[in-house]
Amino acid sequence: MQYGYFDDEAREYVITEPKTPFPWINYLGNEEFFGLVSNTGGGYSFYKDAKFRRLTRYRYNNVPIDTGGRYYYIKDGDTVWNPGWKPTQTELDSYECRHGLSYSKFTGVKNGVKSELTCFVPLGVNAEVHKLSIENNSTVQKSLKLFSLAEWCLWNAQTDMENFQRNLSTGEVEIDGSVLYHKTEYKERRNHYAFFSVNAPIQGCDTDRETFTGLYNGFDAPQTVLAGAPQNTEAHGWSPIASHYLEIDLAPGEKRELVFVLGYVENAEEDKWESKGVINKAKAKEMISLFDTVGKVDAALADLSNYWKKLLSVYQVESGDEKLDRMVNIWNQYQCMVTFNMSRSASFFESGIGRGMGFRDSNQDLIGFVHQIPERAKERIIDIASTQFEDGSAYHQYQPLTKRGNAEIGGNFNDDPLWLILSVTAYIKETGDWSILDESVPYDNDESKATDLFGHLSRSFNFTVNTLGPHGLPLIGRADWNDCLNLNCFSKDPNESFQTTENASGGQAESLMIAGEFVLYGREYIRLCKIRGLDAEAEAAQIHVDAMVESVKTHGWDGDWFLRAYDFYGKKVGSHENEEAQIFIESQGFCTMAEIGKEEGLCEKALDSVNERLATEHGIVLNNPAFTKYVIEYGEISTYPPGYKENAGIFCHNNPWVCIGETKAGNGDRAFDYWKRIAPAYREDISELHKMEPYVYSQMIAGKDAFKPGEAKNSWLTGTAAWNWAAISHYILGIQPDYDGLVIDPCIPKAWKQYSVTRRFRDAEYCITIKNPDGVNKGVVLLLVDGVLTKGNMIPIFGDHGVHEVEVILGEAHV
Amino acid sequence: MQYGYFDDEAREYVITEPKTPFPWINYLGNEEFFGLVSNTGGGYSFYKDAKFRRLTRYRYNNVPIDTGGRYYYIKDGDTVWNPGWKPTQTELDSYECRHGLSYSKFTGVKNGVKSELTCFVPLGVNAEVHKLSIENNSTVQKSLKLFSLAEWCLWNAQTDMENFQRNLSTGEVEIDGSVLYHKTEYKERRNHYAFFSVNAPIQGCDTDRETFTGLYNGFDAPQTVLAGAPQNTEAHGWSPIASHYLEIDLAPGEKRELVFVLGYVENAEEDKWESKGVINKAKAKEMISLFDTVGKVDAALADLSNYWKKLLSVYQVESGDEKLDRMVNIWNQYQCMVTFNMSRSASFFESGIGRGMGFRDSNQDLIGFVHQIPERAKERIIDIASTQFEDGSAYHQYQPLTKRGNAEIGGNFNDDPLWLILSVTAYIKETGDWSILDESVPYDNDESKATDLFGHLSRSFNFTVNTLGPHGLPLIGRADWNDCLNLNCFSKDPNESFQTTENASGGQAESLMIAGEFVLYGREYIRLCKIRGLDAEAEAAQIHVDAMVESVKTHGWDGDWFLRAYDFYGKKVGSHENEEAQIFIESQGFCTMAEIGKEEGLCEKALDSVNERLATEHGIVLNNPAFTKYVIEYGEISTYPPGYKENAGIFCHNNPWVCIGETKAGNGDRAFDYWKRIAPAYREDISELHKMEPYVYSQMIAGKDAFKPGEAKNSWLTGTAAWNWAAISHYILGIQPDYDGLVIDPCIPKAWKQYSVTRRFRDAEYCITIKNPDGVNKGVVLLLVDGVLTKGNMIPIFGDHGVHEVEVILGEAHV
Repeated sequence: MQYGYFDDEAREYVITEPKTPFPWINYLGNEEFFGLVSNTGGGYSFYKDAKFRRLTRYRYNNVPIDTGGRYYYIKDGDTVWNPGWKPTQTELDSYECRHGLSYSKFTGVKNGVKSELTCFVPLGVNAEVHKLSIENNSTVQKSLKLFSLAEWCLWNAQTDMENFQRNLSTGEVEIDGSVLYHKTEYKERRNHYAFFSVNAPIQGCDTDRETFTGLYNGFDAPQTVLAGAPQNTEAHGWSPIASHYLEIDLAPGEKRELVFVLGYVENAEEDKWESKGVINKAKAKEMISLFDTVGKVDAALADLSNYWKKLLSVYQVESGDEKLDRMVNIWNQYQCMVTFNMSRSASFFESGIGRGMGFRDSNQDLIGFVHQIPERAKERIIDIASTQFEDGSAYHQYQPLTKRGNAEIGGNFNDDPLWLILSVTAYIKETGDWSILDESVPYDNDESKATDLFGHLSRSFNFTVNTLGPHGLPLIGRADWNDCLNLNCFSKDPNESFQTTENASGGQAESLMIAGEFVLYGREYIRLCKIRGLDAEAEAAQIHVDAMVESVKTHGWDGDWFLRAYDFYGKKVGSHENEEAQIFIESQGFCTMAEIGKEEGLCEKALDSVNERLATEHGIVLNNPAFTKYVIEYGEISTYPPGYKENAGIFCHNNPWVCIGETKAGNGDRAFDYWKRIAPAYREDISELHKMEPYVYSQMIAGKDAFKPGEAKNSWLTGTAAWNWAAISHYILGIQPDYDGLVIDPCIPKAWKQYSVTRRFRDAEYCITIKNPDGVNKGVVLLLVDGVLTKGNMIPIFGDHGVHEVEVILGEAHV
Repeated sequence: MQYGYFDDEAREYVITEPKTPFPWINYLGNEEFFGLVSNTGGGYSFYKDAKFRRLTRYRYNNVPIDTGGRYYYIKDGDTVWNPGWKPTQTELDSYECRHGLSYSKFTGVKNGVKSELTCFVPLGVNAEVHKLSIENNSTVQKSLKLFSLAEWCLWNAQTDMENFQRNLSTGEVEIDGSVLYHKTEYKERRNHYAFFSVNAPIQGCDTDRETFTGLYNGFDAPQTVLAGAPQNTEAHGWSPIASHYLEIDLAPGEKRELVFVLGYVENAEEDKWESKGVINKAKAKEMISLFDTVGKVDAALADLSNYWKKLLSVYQVESGDEKLDRMVNIWNQYQCMVTFNMSRSASFFESGIGRGMGFRDSNQDLIGFVHQIPERAKERIIDIASTQFEDGSAYHQYQPLTKRGNAEIGGNFNDDPLWLILSVTAYIKETGDWSILDESVPYDNDESKATDLFGHLSRSFNFTVNTLGPHGLPLIGRADWNDCLNLNCFSKDPNESFQTTENASGGQAESLMIAGEFVLYGREYIRLCKIRGLDAEAEAAQIHVDAMVESVKTHGWDGDWFLRAYDFYGKKVGSHENEEAQIFIESQGFCTMAEIGKEEGLCEKALDSVNERLATEHGIVLNNPAFTKYVIEYGEISTYPPGYKENAGIFCHNNPWVCIGETKAGNGDRAFDYWKRIAPAYREDISELHKMEPYVYSQMIAGKDAFKPGEAKNSWLTGTAAWNWAAISHYILGIQPDYDGLVIDPCIPKAWKQYSVTRRFRDAEYCITIKNPDGVNKGVVLLLVDGVLTKGNMIPIFGDHGVHEVEVILGEAHV
């Protein structure tokens, strides 16, 4: 069942039924000001940091769900309704929500009145702009009453929901014409305030929530709206809000357009006040003036549209499969950018107060957006690397505001350092900007301890070399990529975090996943060394990589698949010898991506085992069988109910590793099939089961051991987006940036006949047509660049700002 | 305006209008299991710790307010209603909520059906018991459908509202007949589960919230209730709930009584399971069987009633002023016990996750309940003292579960240590148990560092001696009792806590309040020394106290009142020289209680200044004039809007200090008048303004500089209760326990003619009648004990388990 449809031309998902199986959301903003908005208008706004600078209040996991947002109430006689259906939930004559790229548009029709609300954050502006048009399509005169509503959060989202003894006394506002200001704590330590404005005279307002809604009414039925009369309150403590009141008289056919601005302003200490106790509003007024006409708003919307058009144009496919095209051309790329913007901090599952930026997360996320915004990718790489320790290890998280490592969580997740090699090489391959390796980058943010970035990569590589266990495999530390496989933790206290609790020492837990990662990115490191002429270093590294390959083959192979790990006591994890969780996905993914033991058939065997034991119609589960009891030696993974999250859920992040492994083995049919199973556009028609948005990946889909297999959770902010982007664009469609050109190496279903990709790369545009006359999975047999036969499968770099036609023929290699 | 009335006989406050100006709540439980319940049935339950063991979910500051609780829905035809009005808010034909001592009773009548719901926690049991009777008072047969509802919290109340990525996958339940179990995380690290039972067969149930309410319906209109049919769901993740469904057919006049039990069970590791994956329910069943008949429930209710009767009977007054009597005999004592039970952690303003137990708070709270439960007071004293440091200073807070000092907050609040002298001497005076001073008590919970408790008191006293500033006054440290006067903080970052941020060093900020406290409790310490024969120590201490008195007189007197402090730079705080906040209440209270400069008339002058500058009809404000801007040298106090909280609010905690000071000056009229201004029973008839419960003190009432003077906030858990208890019972009514007997020293309004107090003290009961024939404020001129003329004003200790008649005549002293 579907709740809407894709409008690919408009690059929108169009929701036609407000009662989606879960709130389906979108993100506004691309720089410093952000908003989350659901398909019924719920959500909140923040400046830079969803914890410390939250503008509007939002209640997670509320009943009913998704209550609270920036709302507009239209009172038409005795009927009160909203353009987005909620919060009144008044049945509309027609409803539509269009989630586009960084904007959302709500159209509601009721009793002959049509309202259209468009919400976005203009580029370069710290504000949400809401364009609201109300049109009288009836045959009678309409006297409408319009109430806006935003509930202010007292800035710090965490204390806002904890410290009522203080909060309920501190709220302060100012009212100045049509602009309602929120200035709590501005008097003292804050240099910022918020405002909510409308570009028209108002006939009243309220700034005190209790008066507006009434103590016993909800947002669905605020007493002032029901009464049709604002109380013109000035909030003092309790819960300040901003609600404008406008009377709108419309003749038949008449339309009124309004622009609301919800903005954030910072003032320098010396510019804080206009007069005693009165805030300096100059910047707010300036911001408001930027959008005081519909024309200005439409121009800003057009800018935003062009911004996205340009970002997405770097990679566009035409395959004949509209689902594939919309994922690749629009939604997967969009999701990667949202993940970048949010640093995974704020979604309808991440409450915006819980976490900093992950070292490994951020490095992996980068492969999803480096082609779109390489300059910001570079900045992020430097930020991340700056938190690395001198021994090559890393803080597991850092704070986006301070850009410093998070000491509370610490380090010792032994996979972390290696991901830096992935992100840096991806950046150079995309941009050709070798200079990044020569940038001076501190350790632990201490400039006195700095080397060039290449030095960081050396230390990343050598950290693993120096942290091997008894089988010559990498020691796992707190955990590797799977945060929940805690082999040194042994926790009995439910209030301990598995990730931060002091680990037991003296154990020998080793990770096959890090082993695969080391081989894969170790080889990338060796390539770098060679290119930089560091042959001795390259040789030494090669010896370590070769040794690791041998260790994996000798100690990491279970007969039909790769082991997952050795535990604290040196016992096998992910072996047929185990009672539960005999096979895990991560080591199969990474060892096949690294092609360890390929010649001996290990990769093929491992991939077959994945297919047999882990693959389901909804994706590939993380382990099998699921844990049915707590294994203290393994930690958090066994705390989840069977089939959920890391305990045999389809943890989508790692599915593309297998896809990529399959492409390396040449199985294009399986690779594409796996990708489709979790790709949201392909799951749109089972939306009632999938539950999450059909336009973005979810972190997890319930696995076969679950109560409800196929039900997804935790949509939007997941490494799934970046890795699936890599799987589909680099490995299946096969357009891979490399240092010296664009490698064309598709691995596709045999049934595909032809597809084309437009790729902007190093200041040129390549229109690539791939033909598959023989129905193969893989193998470039002919490459024509601008009509010229080219050896191998790499398009050279032109850098001429021109457009180049590329024709690729796949077929059986004639060796 | 009133929303109910006091039923003094039943010891209940009876709310007759569900729409109170704020939820008016009550507390259930007295030992380890607790519940908060509002007058419309909202609230939640927890075991021991409101943060780490919360049983049911509650959403603070929701819209509408107070949404969520343990609810019962009655569906009678198309009408759905609740005994407590909420959540359906269906208008009732009659509504009544009776908040009694540790129980609440809701009576609702609708369409001829009467329901009565009584909620309490039986003594010795870790469960809430809900007795629900439904009676058909109509003339027709009724086929009713009853749905219960409790929404489970996933134990840790903080992560429950933050970590949705995990939480929404972990929920687990079991259904066994009429018992619905919540076992999230029991599989792994928890040894506890919860259950919700009913003593009758059910005709269905739901344990999945989304099915029960529907994603778009609230608790006011759950879809299964509206449909009149449960879905018999077993929750897997998302949000587990417990909802029973019972069909109740009642003939005219027929009544059905049901008993619901919401309980908590811990199992030993080896007893966790009945069979694989099935929890061991033996203890739950045993608990349920204790209340499987109404007779058993009524017996438990009677036990609870007797428990309270006994507790309250220690002190009972008959004054002829019913408001005074109900405050003293019922509500003030009750509130003191609730504050003890909650350790100030959980109210409708304290979210239950924010704080440990305060060192100073707990010592002060003790003076409110030591007469009721001296054995538990002793335990608490030892707990508190065990967190003291060797130098006499103290952790500012400690954790009730671990009983260890809270390192995150640390110490350096320089008033803290002295409060220990107050609590210990109060305990000994009440009990005569001198042995407490010889108990071995560790420092910083390290048993290797232990002295006797008396040693702790010495160190408390000497800490101040060793921490004097340039004027010979005590250095303030982070703050004294007024947490918000932060003279060494200088914070500019809004995300810093004024209480925990590193303080500036090198300053000389001194506190006049600690000076008064030192003199007052220093004298108590000297008394103890003398009694223990430590004359040299007594003499040395006397020198320090005398010196402090001189310092106060020399450097602490501003001309008409006592200064509040010297700031970091040695500038006066609370002086007529200041622009704002020229006078503060705390130093007036403590210096007049300590009678510093009484002979010179300083006390009288200071009290007159309080009367003139700080006293208002709603109580005494903290400072005047209010701060209108941030004073970085003063810290948090100046962050509050004028008239609120510590910035010139009526911060009720310190009002009784002035009352007591007035009694020491002999001004009984003013003392009683001040007490009445904040005593809730006297404010009942302005409930629409006061807003908070009229049966308990609030922490704060908005002051004269506020937007709405007289509006209270932060009811229930405040030191106000203990200090007002001391003021009214010890100082105004004048019955004061002392080491060698009961001192009778009333200080009352001149107009009072007579009153009597029954006081149990040291194993005897004293029926004391106080007569005031001459209309004086103060002065015992005649004391008859059992008809025997007794010199002075102290009733000797009989300890004979007998009843003794005491007659006291007040009058002008004939010197």
